[in-house]
Amino acid sequence: MEIDGTLLTILGIAAGILILSGWVDQIIKGYKTKSLKDISKYLMLFISGGSILWLIYGMVVSDIFIIGTNIAAIFLMMTVLFMKKRYEKATNAN
Amino acid sequence: MEIDGTLLTILGIAAGILILSGWVDQIIKGYKTKSLKDISKYLMLFISGGSILWLIYGMVVSDIFIIGTNIAAIFLMMTVLFMKKRYEKATNAN
Repeated sequence: MEIDGTLLTILGIAAGILILSGWVDQIIKGYKTKSLKDISKYLMLFISGGSILWLIYGMVVSDIFIIGTNIAAIFLMMTVLFMKKRYEKATNAN
Repeated sequence: MEIDGTLLTILGIAAGILILSGWVDQIIKGYKTKSLKDISKYLMLFISGGSILWLIYGMVVSDIFIIGTNIAAIFLMMTVLFMKKRYEKATNAN
């Protein structure tokens, strides 16, 4: 397939925005309901680990979209994991 | 940074395995608890949309790891979304 720089830029930005919007919505939902117990802790840990590897991969191939999306995704996923831990601690304390 | 084919292969495979393991664990957890209500529907829809764009991106740059991981991730995320809908329907029916 022919490589088109503009197409790649649009795809990379749109994919990044969609993925990050999804995580932001998850954070908002969790903040509102104060419950994230249905979310697997290992989902967060494993896909964060995967994102760290994608980040290294993106650095090796010098792909700014892979790098940017994964840095932001790792930050958002760690936020979800932190909220999950915090809400579960609060529930157990009651 | 210098591009090393073997390093890229290892990174791509490891990242893919981690991300897919995370989703498989989420499916197992959801199947056991029969509850996925804390997971944002938009998280599933948005990151699936993002994965579809990453898949196209991977096809354009002919990157087998981006293609493979995203095909599998889309399938697993759709499974989680389907389970979520099904469990919520079952809960509402009671």
